[in-house]
Amino acid sequence: MRSIDLNCDMGESYGRYILGRDEELMPYLTSVSLACGFHAGDPVVIQRTVENAVKHNLAIGAHPGYPDLQGFGRRKMEMTPEEVEAMVLYQIGALWGFIRSIGVEMTHVKPHGALYNQAAEDYQLAKAIISAVRRFSRNLTIVGMAGSILVTIGLDMGMKIAQEGFVERGYLANGRLMPREYPGSIIHDPVKAAEQAVRLAKEGINIQQENLPENIQIDTLCIHGDSPNALDVAIAVRSALEEAGIIIKNFAA
Amino acid sequence: MRSIDLNCDMGESYGRYILGRDEELMPYLTSVSLACGFHAGDPVVIQRTVENAVKHNLAIGAHPGYPDLQGFGRRKMEMTPEEVEAMVLYQIGALWGFIRSIGVEMTHVKPHGALYNQAAEDYQLAKAIISAVRRFSRNLTIVGMAGSILVTIGLDMGMKIAQEGFVERGYLANGRLMPREYPGSIIHDPVKAAEQAVRLAKEGINIQQENLPENIQIDTLCIHGDSPNALDVAIAVRSALEEAGIIIKNFAA
Amino acid sequence: MRSIDLNCDMGESYGRYILGRDEELMPYLTSVSLACGFHAGDPVVIQRTVENAVKHNLAIGAHPGYPDLQGFGRRKMEMTPEEVEAMVLYQIGALWGFIRSIGVEMTHVKPHGALYNQAAEDYQLAKAIISAVRRFSRNLTIVGMAGSILVTIGLDMGMKIAQEGFVERGYLANGRLMPREYPGSIIHDPVKAAEQAVRLAKEGINIQQENLPENIQIDTLCIHGDSPNALDVAIAVRSALEEAGIIIKNFAA
Amino acid sequence: MRSIDLNCDMGESYGRYILGRDEELMPYLTSVSLACGFHAGDPVVIQRTVENAVKHNLAIGAHPGYPDLQGFGRRKMEMTPEEVEAMVLYQIGALWGFIRSIGVEMTHVKPHGALYNQAAEDYQLAKAIISAVRRFSRNLTIVGMAGSILVTIGLDMGMKIAQEGFVERGYLANGRLMPREYPGSIIHDPVKAAEQAVRLAKEGINIQQENLPENIQIDTLCIHGDSPNALDVAIAVRSALEEAGIIIKNFAA
Repeated sequence: MRSIDLNCDMGESYGRYILGRDEELMPYLTSVSLACGFHAGDPVVIQRTVENAVKHNLAIGAHPGYPDLQGFGRRKMEMTPEEVEAMVLYQIGALWGFIRSIGVEMTHVKPHGALYNQAAEDYQLAKAIISAVRRFSRNLTIVGMAGSILVTIGLDMGMKIAQEGFVERGYLANGRLMPREYPGSIIHDPVKAAEQAVRLAKEGINIQQENLPENIQIDTLCIHGDSPNALDVAIAVRSALEEAGIIIKNFAA
Repeated sequence: MRSIDLNCDMGESYGRYILGRDEELMPYLTSVSLACGFHAGDPVVIQRTVENAVKHNLAIGAHPGYPDLQGFGRRKMEMTPEEVEAMVLYQIGALWGFIRSIGVEMTHVKPHGALYNQAAEDYQLAKAIISAVRRFSRNLTIVGMAGSILVTIGLDMGMKIAQEGFVERGYLANGRLMPREYPGSIIHDPVKAAEQAVRLAKEGINIQQENLPENIQIDTLCIHGDSPNALDVAIAVRSALEEAGIIIKNFAA
Repeated sequence: MRSIDLNCDMGESYGRYILGRDEELMPYLTSVSLACGFHAGDPVVIQRTVENAVKHNLAIGAHPGYPDLQGFGRRKMEMTPEEVEAMVLYQIGALWGFIRSIGVEMTHVKPHGALYNQAAEDYQLAKAIISAVRRFSRNLTIVGMAGSILVTIGLDMGMKIAQEGFVERGYLANGRLMPREYPGSIIHDPVKAAEQAVRLAKEGINIQQENLPENIQIDTLCIHGDSPNALDVAIAVRSALEEAGIIIKNFAA
Repeated sequence: MRSIDLNCDMGESYGRYILGRDEELMPYLTSVSLACGFHAGDPVVIQRTVENAVKHNLAIGAHPGYPDLQGFGRRKMEMTPEEVEAMVLYQIGALWGFIRSIGVEMTHVKPHGALYNQAAEDYQLAKAIISAVRRFSRNLTIVGMAGSILVTIGLDMGMKIAQEGFVERGYLANGRLMPREYPGSIIHDPVKAAEQAVRLAKEGINIQQENLPENIQIDTLCIHGDSPNALDVAIAVRSALEEAGIIIKNFAA
């Protein structure tokens, strides 16, 4: 019987700036990836978000990103592999202190924004990220875009992997994400997002590389926490998965 | 037989900006406290400094400070205890990832600059710092100014403590540090610094509170790594201590 | 016949983080003070806010603050007068480029947050701020808390001054702002805020210093742009002032 | 009779971090480009460097860069043209306040680091930079790499231009800068740098585009202020130019 994890990126507020409706969404999720203070999040936000996530019994992971608060980590930055590795290791540790102090375990690491997208295609970058995670702990799961280079290299380097699908993003025929500027690239309708969630959970994604389709099973589904109807999407996705008989549990459970 | 630790604050470079002669000084020390990226240091600097410190077999601690690179953490910032605790916990974890990944243990935490000075006198602030350290690990030693409130509260809260003296700073008759604007507040002469080191190691400091002198034994001596003659001071201090028959070893050994 | 300026602090968004409903409020105001990128605001936010303010024919001023985005410039920072002066001059110029490029004039400078509050009481700090403004241009008006030291020194140093009152803040009997932790320190009811606006515009504030009341005429009324009912307050204040026969125009007109 | 400007990038210190020997070099230069606080420089550093430059009667320009202190503005960042334009306008204004307050004029703008290199080849980026400069003032000269797109577009957009050559960088046969990883890409010998300075001043650079050599006259020569022998290079370059009968004066004179 199929099982799937439901995740959301959280802890993206900063000082007085509030982003996302973290607490409302948590009851519908099984894991969260928390911003670590570089592209979003500050120590107080981290503290509070970790506390909330523990209350809701969620798997907690680090969501490291570029040091670019103004660009929210969505702008590519040119960095050497050494810089990327150190930057990721720093952020994992920074978050880890908060989790450790509550007595639970960090379960995973998922790169954020431009780092996530680049790591899906750039071998050097993906390797630097995974090196940082592996140096921190071999027990951490790396969450990456389904069928991406990050996932391939993560497996090669002996790490646990969770392949991620997106319930609110359109997919191209070749299994890749539709660029954001395409019409239909964002799925706003909770019903359609729920349908996509069930399809991804049941069928996975067919990635076509050199005309050879490869079916990839999805381990975790990402719900965007900052869309205006995030709560509706989360509720619709969760109930549709349950109706379809899919077990919802985190990948660490 | 008396023993003493010799420490220096390190890892204070940032990007292209180089500060201190870390590698040259390391052979003469037994412990280092490393900047964690808020008032100084960046992930690559941390990575390299941890590697060097491990090579030289030094006890490695975190040196958390205010988020003020421009002021080098020397300008007071008004923060709530919650903010201070989260900020310190964040920085400890950030550094810890680098140490953990090499397979050694972090030994201590020493607040930096304005945070260090305020923690010597401000009960709420000292408590917030110690809470952060204790939450991270009860095995960490807290390094604080000899006779300070940080030390008193640290003991009250069940933590291990190292009382710190300064070889290059003048002391007042009441056992407090001479303010920097006083003539003689900075000891530049390596010979005099070495004499003070031996005296502090042998006799400790007499802190006068309400006319009752209290003798405090010094556990660790701080050498400033960024003075022009830091190397001369380190060499003079170390050899004077050895001649005086004082064992030089870190407080974690 | 009495006239008064209605002002609001704006341009406080940062990257993806949206704060305040600037555009909705602008039709009800006569001046705005814009964050300059240190405690809030980024270059793109500044660009857009200046454009909007010009469209609404508002007097535009700089709202410089401490370099503390996380604390939103509300946490005191220890700075030398030289640092404060340079920091304020930097921020005025940074904003001025955007205003100049549209062909309008900057009218005023109003310090933000902790800097505003400290400048109301700290002679050295107030002087450093005014020096920066005066160096930039003697045509700029300095906006300060009514009856504050900033205002007194500003006049002494030959600058134009606008005394500011707050429609949503309680006042003590001695003419000072009620601390935020007091019950009644924040006026949420638009009707009461409007009443206070009319009273401040007509009667000014009686500051009691050494038991000698001094009546201070209010030149500008501040409306908080980030309260949930900011729009209701602005509408109520404006129409109450108009009904009371008070002319609403900016201090530069 | 030929004349040439001698420039250096300055004001690159930050807080306690000192970079470059600005004051020693100034007597040998005719213009300086000052960091504006994004990739280097802080308000106090700007204040002091402007004062020194005025004392030495140097033409003063802005040297805007990416908001990346850790990478010293040398790492590419992905930005929209709107972001680049606002970022450059912000930095020009920020510096301008310090120059204006002393009563002299800003003469030029020269992009820094990755921004400079990208602007030599990227049409959109170059246009965004020039738009910012032109909006600020049509009297500003844009300094760009000789033969670069920045220069071409600057002329197209009606701006004054200064074509820049480098005395310490090797050139390829096609007139482009040798990449830094090539042997011989950096000229350390003051004598050779001086020879190159005279050659560039007399002969300009032959840029080969589509096999059509185009001779470009050099208006300004850049000396690196942060090399260990910067002073020797500056002295050698200046006296060699004088001996060759070339007039040394800034492009604004």
